[in-house]
Parts: sequence; C-alpha cells; structure tokens
Amino acid sequence: MEYKISGGLASLKPSIIREILKNTGGSVIPFAAGNPAPDAFPVDDVREILGELMENNPVLALQYGVTEGYAPLIAELEKMCRDRYNVLSDSDSVIVTSGAQQVMSLLSHTLLNPGDTVICEEPAFIGALNCFRAFGAKLVGVPLEADGMNIEALENAFKSEPNAKFLYTIPNFQNPAGSTTSFEKRKAIYALAKKYGIIILEDNPYGETRVAGEDIPAIKTMDDCGLVVYSGSFSKIVAPGIRVGFVCANKELIAKMTVVKQTQDVHTPLTSQYIVYKWLHDYDYEAHIAKIRDIYRRKLNLMCDLIDEELGDYVEYVRPQGGLFVWCKLDDRFDMLTFVRKASEAGVSIVPGSAFLCDESKSTQYVRLNFSTPTDEGIVKGVKILGEVARNYR
Amino acid sequence: MEYKISGGLASLKPSIIREILKNTGGSVIPFAAGNPAPDAFPVDDVREILGELMENNPVLALQYGVTEGYAPLIAELEKMCRDRYNVLSDSDSVIVTSGAQQVMSLLSHTLLNPGDTVICEEPAFIGALNCFRAFGAKLVGVPLEADGMNIEALENAFKSEPNAKFLYTIPNFQNPAGSTTSFEKRKAIYALAKKYGIIILEDNPYGETRVAGEDIPAIKTMDDCGLVVYSGSFSKIVAPGIRVGFVCANKELIAKMTVVKQTQDVHTPLTSQYIVYKWLHDYDYEAHIAKIRDIYRRKLNLMCDLIDEELGDYVEYVRPQGGLFVWCKLDDRFDMLTFVRKASEAGVSIVPGSAFLCDESKSTQYVRLNFSTPTDEGIVKGVKILGEVARNYR
Repeated sequence: MEYKISGGLASLKPSIIREILKNTGGSVIPFAAGNPAPDAFPVDDVREILGELMENNPVLALQYGVTEGYAPLIAELEKMCRDRYNVLSDSDSVIVTSGAQQVMSLLSHTLLNPGDTVICEEPAFIGALNCFRAFGAKLVGVPLEADGMNIEALENAFKSEPNAKFLYTIPNFQNPAGSTTSFEKRKAIYALAKKYGIIILEDNPYGETRVAGEDIPAIKTMDDCGLVVYSGSFSKIVAPGIRVGFVCANKELIAKMTVVKQTQDVHTPLTSQYIVYKWLHDYDYEAHIAKIRDIYRRKLNLMCDLIDEELGDYVEYVRPQGGLFVWCKLDDRFDMLTFVRKASEAGVSIVPGSAFLCDESKSTQYVRLNFSTPTDEGIVKGVKILGEVARNYR
Repeated sequence: MEYKISGGLASLKPSIIREILKNTGGSVIPFAAGNPAPDAFPVDDVREILGELMENNPVLALQYGVTEGYAPLIAELEKMCRDRYNVLSDSDSVIVTSGAQQVMSLLSHTLLNPGDTVICEEPAFIGALNCFRAFGAKLVGVPLEADGMNIEALENAFKSEPNAKFLYTIPNFQNPAGSTTSFEKRKAIYALAKKYGIIILEDNPYGETRVAGEDIPAIKTMDDCGLVVYSGSFSKIVAPGIRVGFVCANKELIAKMTVVKQTQDVHTPLTSQYIVYKWLHDYDYEAHIAKIRDIYRRKLNLMCDLIDEELGDYVEYVRPQGGLFVWCKLDDRFDMLTFVRKASEAGVSIVPGSAFLCDESKSTQYVRLNFSTPTDEGIVKGVKILGEVARNYR
C-alpha cells in the first residue's frame, strides 16, 4: 500500500547524525553522542527512592495520574522556578513533561500551523529542528556568535517573517555550539521579541552544568507579559533515562499545552516523577550538582587541553563554560564531511556541523565533539586519533 | 499578550468529562473514572523487578535509550504479536510507545493534514477524539451497534469522505460502549477499508480483560497489505502509571512514527520498559491474566446484577464481555444531563454519553458507568443511589 504521509512528516528526512550513529559500532570512540556521563547519575539515591516507593506507595507508582503531573513534584518545581531561577510569575504555572523534548512538541502543536516560521539559532539542537519540521514549520536561522545570536540578524528575521510564531534558544552552553548568551544580548533578545510579539522558547537543559564563569539570569526573569516559555530538564541533573522535564509559562499557554500532553501520553510515568520529587525534596541538590560539575569540568578541560595540543594547528574553537560539547571549526584545508568520514574510519565518531543547520545541505567547516559520553581514556585516545587524521589529511 | 493558537488547538474545547471529574471530591463514588482496579496490579512483581534492575543494571535504567524501545522488550512484544495475537507479518515491525495514547498521536501526526477526516465509531473513546481534533481533523462517526459498527454507514462514510485518512476502532469491549465487534463485521470492515484504501487504527487496550465468551481474531490478522495499525497497551495488564504501550504496523509507517516519537519524548522511560520486559520474560502471564479476569468478572457482574435490580425499569444496556464500562441508555422520561447532575449531587459521578460523540453538542440518552475504579462496596452503594435518583426523578 502507498501511504499518504502528512505534509510535516513527508518532508522530514532521516538526519545525517542518525546515519552516522547507526554505523557506530562498540569499538568506536563516541564523540558523536550526547549522553551524560554515567558516573554523574545519583544511582544510590534512585535505588533508595524506588525501593521506598514500591514499599510504601506502590499504587501511587502504578495507577493513572493527572496530566499536569504529580502534585508534590509540581510544588517542588514551582519552588525551584521561583527561588532558584526566578522564572515563575503569578500568571505562570508549571507542568511536568516527558523530558524537555516534549516541551518543544507541546508548544509547537499549540502554536504552529503548517507554513508558520520558527526562528532558530544557527546552529541549533537537531532534536528541536526536527520537531519544528514535523509540524511543517519554515525554519529561519540566526547566526550564533560566541556571546549569543547576532542581534541585527535577529531583528531582520523578526521583521521579514510575519508568520514567525516563536524563537527557539538555548542561552546556556548551547547544543552544539557551547556558547552562552551574554546578559546584554539576553536583554536585547527579550526587547526585540516583545517589540515584534514573538514568543521565546527558552530551553535550559544544561544550565546546572556550569564549570567556569558566573550564572547569568534567564531571559524568563525579564518576562513581564507572558512572552517566554521556560523549559527545564532533569536529564543532566538526575538522569535522562527517566525522561522528566518541565515547562514554566503563562497559565493560558500551559492550559493548551496540557491538552496536547493529554493527547500524547496522558501523563509522565509516576515512577519517573516520584524519583525527581523525592530527590528534590529529600536529597542534597547542591552537593550533587557540585559533584556533576567536577566530573564535567575534568572531562571538558581534558578534551580542550588535548585539542589545543593535538589539533591546535587545524581547528578553532571557544572553550565552553559548561554543557557537553565542543564546537570546532576545521580550517579551510579540510573538507568537513571528508574529515568526519576519515575520523570514523579511524575509530572516532564525530558529528558534521551541517546536521545542526536549518538547511542541512548548506556547507560548514564545523564539527561537534562530545566529552561526556566517552571515558577519560576514550577522550585521550580519541583526540589523539583526530590529531593523526588531521596531520595525515590528503 | 494575546496568543495565536494553532488551528487544531484553538477549536479544542475542554470536554464535559474533565469538568465533571474536576468537581469530583473524595467522597464521590467514582463511576466516571476509568482506572484499572488497584488490586489487579502485580505489585510484588514490579517491586522485585525494580529492585533487581537498580541492583544489577542501574545505568541501563538511567541512561538514554533508543527511540524504538529497549531491544529485549521489542523482542518480547514481537513474540507476543506473532504467537499470541497473530498480528505480526514479515513486513511489520513493533516499537514501544508511552501508552497506547501515544500511538494515536504518532499515527495522527504521520498521516493527518488539517481538514483531513478520521472515521470513528460513535460513540468513541474521548482521548482518541481529542487527539484527532488536535490535529485539525474532521471527525465522522459511524453508529456502533451491539456487534460493531453499522457496515452500511461505514461504507457511506468511506464513500463520502475522500480525505479520510484512517478509521479508528476498538473491536474488543469498546470504550465507552462495551461492545465487541463480531468476526463477520471485522471481515467486512477490513474488506471495505481495503476497497477504499483507508488505514485502520485497531486499538486493543482491553482485549485481555475478557470475562465471558470467546476471543475473536484481531482485524490485523487479516491484513495482507499493510493497512492495519495494531495498538496494544499494558495499562490494563500490568499498570497504567508506567505508561507502556506498543504499535505493530508496516515498517514504512513505523519508521515515520518513530521519527515523530523522537520529536515527542525521545524514548519511553527505561524503568517502565524494563518492568514490562522482565515481567513478560520471567513471570506468569497466564496466571496474572486469570487473576485480573476474576477481579473484573466479579465487579462487572456485581454492577450489572445491581443495575438489573435497581435500574431495570429505567435503563437498557448490553452486558459487556470485558473491558471496564457499562453503557446504559436512559429511557425517555429522563433528560440525560439532568440525570447526570442529580447523580453527582447524590454522590455518584457518571459520564454523560455526549462526551463520546464526534459532536459533543448532539443529544443522547446514554451514560457511561465504570466498575473497575470503585470498590465492591462502592459499586453496591453507587448503583443503589442511582436507583434512588431514577425513582425520585422529577
């Protein structure tokens, strides 16, 4: 039978990144992945929490819950949004989502008609781009600089796209670029979005992984008119396998997103929600974050120091202050896709930067390297191999 | 700020059922709900499985997984689809979903453009109707009879709706009607769908809850051209709170649905997937199903015997052979919505049948009663109260 696929899906091609990862065997050093370091997971805490849950409250874990989320978890998230991030206003509310990925899907479904525009940083997270594409959105990229989007280009995009429904941004340690948007630019972005009436989806999955520098207030802290949808995740704080995120936004938008969530998965599994609730409520958040930051600081600096040593003559990059990725620009002697292929043949998987463009067919000299998934030994070995690939190129 | 909501969502109103349940306090007898009976949950098994998982394989539980699902679970599901249900052909594959609700969302996103038609049984499951509405679908209802849809009306719908993308049906113990589609009608439905090239979404969340009569082969067993998308759920077999379902369909459709799933929640939580995998692999499926059926047989017959006694003069219904619901037609002396309101005031929540219509504003004499959520005492007390409401009506 010949299937008639919907407009959004028909045009969605399998991404380069999936093809690369498909061919990544067990012996390959995984610089292409984006998994948190397993030693950053609070394994003992989760074991204890699940044991306690199944001992004292198994029916809570197993029965249907409400779509908005487990009420005690929502209370913890509201406290966190208010006290820690200052992103919760009186006209906002919070719901639990099945990872921060679901926030993109819920907001897209709530706002996008086919052909509407989503303004994105360029490069941008591929999972977000594909989500917007699936809703038939036109993607318009705004060049990302070391301190955030080019503000002039952002205003041009807002001006020239009357059907722009929202702007998607990761202000902290962006995936893939690793960049952090400066406070000045955050203010400029908010002011422009307000001027043009464009919603901002502020995605902050990496905020707690800062290993250098000072925290910068979220764009949502400036929101005085329900313009900013703030999305958070526990994938890098607790663990990604449990799939727990949240969204803090104006109540009217949250009500619509809740209806969409009900049509997608009814609610996020109670076991997952209870893990995060109990962990936030009873365990030492600060101590765990400090531990995670130590792990990522070590791995980030290990990789960057080695890049300086092995690839200093061949690539440019800005050392990120957090996140999981280093975004390297190969110099012009290299054909980027050929370099990626040679690296793969030599046993190191990396992601071609084109995967993160609104138009994947455009050319770029960038590649993305991940330092959280490989072991320390893997990082050392992998960057050395990349150095050899560069030295032996052509 | 005034939000511009997408076409599908703007027209989606909060349903009557949500409003009723919102006003349902703790002292109300919950005939309006649809929760499985908590004593049907394999609590000890799940406790053991989670303990073993966190002891032996915590990183599996906590790290990212692949979108298609945990491979050993997929293998179990394929075995089940092949050997138990006979719904898996060589051109099909199976993925894990976040409940059967997600199958509706994934298929809708894969196939529907705004304005496309979905053919539904009438009445139909409200969670499905709202999902299709959220994609801007036009809903066309086909009257449901005691042995399944009216076949003539189904053919008329197929004929008159050139943009019909799929037919949604629950052939076993339908929600809300409790009806089971006969084998003859299943054959007729498949033949017509094939003739008109319309995909069938065969949703089977209740199949294992049969308490009387003989199993009837799924429509999917007849599928020789990739026309049927078969959806299953562990909400009534294991537990709903873990949110695990699956879909078995042609590989081409599954590939598209997998891309959509990646944009929605990346993957179903590993803890939930592992519970179902291990339970299917190591525990006594047949014994547990037999236990569940005993519970539901007792509760179903308790409710129906009492309806006969207390409401026999006022309602008509067909005793279902499984599922969780009794679908009662009030006789003409009652205004249905007034009866529902009086029942609620007397302490029993029931769902007005209009909630399950493609057009909720149409009138109907039906109400839906659930027997799985209330205790046995609640069933006795609740039906007696409904009897009093009927006797004292006006």
